[in-house]
Amino acid sequence: MLTADEIHDHLNNLTKPKGSLGQLEMLAAKLSLCQQTLKPRTKPRSIVIFAADHGVVTEGISAWPAEVTALMITNILSGGAASSVLAKSTKTELRLVDVGSYGLPENESDNYRCVKIACGTANLSKKPSMTKEQFKQAALVGRAEAEIAVGKGARILAAGEMGIGNTTSASCITSLLCDAAPESVIGSGAGADEVILSRKRDIVYDAVQRLRNKSNNDFIEDISSICGFEIAAMAGFYCKAFELKRVMIIDGFISTAAALIAEKISPGCCGYMIASHCSAEPGHKILLKKLKLAPLLNWSMHLGEGTGALLAMPLIDAAANITSKMATFESAGIKR
Amino acid sequence: MLTADEIHDHLNNLTKPKGSLGQLEMLAAKLSLCQQTLKPRTKPRSIVIFAADHGVVTEGISAWPAEVTALMITNILSGGAASSVLAKSTKTELRLVDVGSYGLPENESDNYRCVKIACGTANLSKKPSMTKEQFKQAALVGRAEAEIAVGKGARILAAGEMGIGNTTSASCITSLLCDAAPESVIGSGAGADEVILSRKRDIVYDAVQRLRNKSNNDFIEDISSICGFEIAAMAGFYCKAFELKRVMIIDGFISTAAALIAEKISPGCCGYMIASHCSAEPGHKILLKKLKLAPLLNWSMHLGEGTGALLAMPLIDAAANITSKMATFESAGIKR
Repeated sequence: MLTADEIHDHLNNLTKPKGSLGQLEMLAAKLSLCQQTLKPRTKPRSIVIFAADHGVVTEGISAWPAEVTALMITNILSGGAASSVLAKSTKTELRLVDVGSYGLPENESDNYRCVKIACGTANLSKKPSMTKEQFKQAALVGRAEAEIAVGKGARILAAGEMGIGNTTSASCITSLLCDAAPESVIGSGAGADEVILSRKRDIVYDAVQRLRNKSNNDFIEDISSICGFEIAAMAGFYCKAFELKRVMIIDGFISTAAALIAEKISPGCCGYMIASHCSAEPGHKILLKKLKLAPLLNWSMHLGEGTGALLAMPLIDAAANITSKMATFESAGIKR
Repeated sequence: MLTADEIHDHLNNLTKPKGSLGQLEMLAAKLSLCQQTLKPRTKPRSIVIFAADHGVVTEGISAWPAEVTALMITNILSGGAASSVLAKSTKTELRLVDVGSYGLPENESDNYRCVKIACGTANLSKKPSMTKEQFKQAALVGRAEAEIAVGKGARILAAGEMGIGNTTSASCITSLLCDAAPESVIGSGAGADEVILSRKRDIVYDAVQRLRNKSNNDFIEDISSICGFEIAAMAGFYCKAFELKRVMIIDGFISTAAALIAEKISPGCCGYMIASHCSAEPGHKILLKKLKLAPLLNWSMHLGEGTGALLAMPLIDAAANITSKMATFESAGIKR
C-alpha cells in the first residue's frame, strides 16, 4: 500500500524546490495514489462519447434543433469534430455510443455502437424523462463501455456527451443535488438567448420543485425523471471505472452532473476523478465544489463532447512524467 | 494579409457553437494571426534555458546556495530536471546556455553552449549588477540563440532560466517598470522564509529608489544595474524572435520580467507572446497585466527553468489542431 505521505516524500526528493510545480504536483500525487505506483501510466487511454436526444427540446430550450445531435454523431465519427481532432492529437482512443438519439444508426464499427434505450427521452417538463428501468439500462451500457476500455488496457478513462438540450437536464440534476436555485445554475449553454434562458429556468424550477414536493423520495427514480440517457450512461461508466480503480478525467457541466450522480451511487468515486476544466456554465462550478474537485483549466469552454477532458490529457501526461522521470536530489548530488 | 476578422470567421465556421472553445479559440486566433495562416504550425519548436549567477546572493536573499545553479545546469543537461523531462515529453528541443554561472563549463555539445559574460553579476545592492556593455553582450547571446533556433526551423520559441537569486533581480525590474511597491511584488520564491523575504524587500526597495532618484535616466543603463545576465539574454532572445515573427511562449516571473524589458526595447513584441501561466510569485501577475497577457494556467508553479512554457506546449498544439483540422458547418452538412 503506497500512502499519500510516501508519495509526497518522493515528490519532495525530486530536483526542484518543494511544491514548486504547484498543481502539477497535486495531479502527480493523485495519479500515483490512484494507480498505487510512483511510475503512473497515462496510456493507453480511452474516451467514450455518449449521445442521446432530449424530449424537452420541444419546449424551445436550446438554440440548436434536435437533428444536430445526429449530424454531430456523424461528424465526430468522421473526424471533423473538436473531440475527434483532440482525441487524435492526444492519442486517446475515441468511441461513440448512441444511447438514444433521434438519428438513424450509422454503420457499426470499432469506434461506434448503437444501443438506443429509446429515440430520445420523454419531455421532462410534462412527465418523467425516463423510467427507473431505462435509467438502469443506460447505466449498464456505460458500465459495459468502461469494462471494454479497461479490457483493452486503458489506464485513464474519460466520458463525453452529445445531446442537444442536455444542459436543461444537467441543470435539473445540479439544482436538485446541490440544492441550488435554477438562476444560479443556468447560463447560456451553447449560445442560448434570454428568451430561451428564461424558459429553461422555469422548466428546471418546476421539475425540481415537483421532486422536492414528493412525499416518497427514491434517488434513482427522482434522477430518472430529469435525466438524459447519455447522462445515465456516463454515471454508469464512472461507477464501473471506480470499481476497476481507473482514474477518470471529467469533462464539462453535463459530465460533471453525471459524475455527481455516480458519487451518490458509489461514494468514494470522486477520489478517482480529475476535473479537466471549469466551464462557462455557472452550474459547473457548483458541481465541482460539491465534488471537491479543483479544475485544471478555467478557459470558459462550453462545448461538451469531452473536449475539456481531451485538452487536459497532455497535462496528465506531464504529471506522470515528472513523477516517474525526474532525478532526485541525491542522484543529482545536490544537498538541501 | 490575413486579418483578425477573417480568422474569427474561420473559427466561427467550424462545427461548434460560436466561441464554445473559450480560451482555446483565442489561442488559436493568436497563432493564426502571428503565423498569418489558418493552418498554424507548432513544431519544430525550441526552448533555450539561460543560466547565470547573481552577486546579490551574498546578501542572503535565497533559500538555496549559489552552487545550485551549476548543479542544476548539469542536471538539466543530463535529463533529470523538470525542464528536461517536460521538453522531452512535449517534443521541444532544449538548449542550455551558460551566460554567467559560477560553475565550471561543461563539455560543449549540440544542446549546450558556454558564453559567460562574467562569473556572476555584481551585487546589485552595492553597485550596478552589470555594465550597459555587459547587458548588450548578454542580449546579443540571446538574439543569436533565437536566430539559431529559427534557422533549425523552429515555429515556436520559448526561453527559460536558471539562476539562484534571480527573483531579486526580477523583483527590482518589476518594481521599477510597473511602478509597484516591493511588498506587492515579492513572494517566497523557491522556498524563502520571512527573514529572507524582509531582506529581499529592503534590497529591492533601495535599488529601485536609487534609480528613481537619478537625475538622468537611461533605460538600458538603469535596467543593467538591476539585471541578471540570463534575464538580459532572454530579453534579447524575445526581441529577435519578434523580428523573426515567431510566437513566443513566456514562462514564469523571471521570464516575464525579461519579456517586459523586450517589449520596452521593441514595442509590439508582446503581440507575439503567449503567457503559459501565472506563477505563485505575486510580481508575475503585475507583469502579465502590464503586458496585457492572459495566462493559460494558474497552477501556483514557481520553479522556472521554462517548466510552465513547456507544460503549455500541448495546449498550443491543441489550438493549432482545432484551427486546421476541424470540419466546417458546410462540410458537415449542418445548417446554423
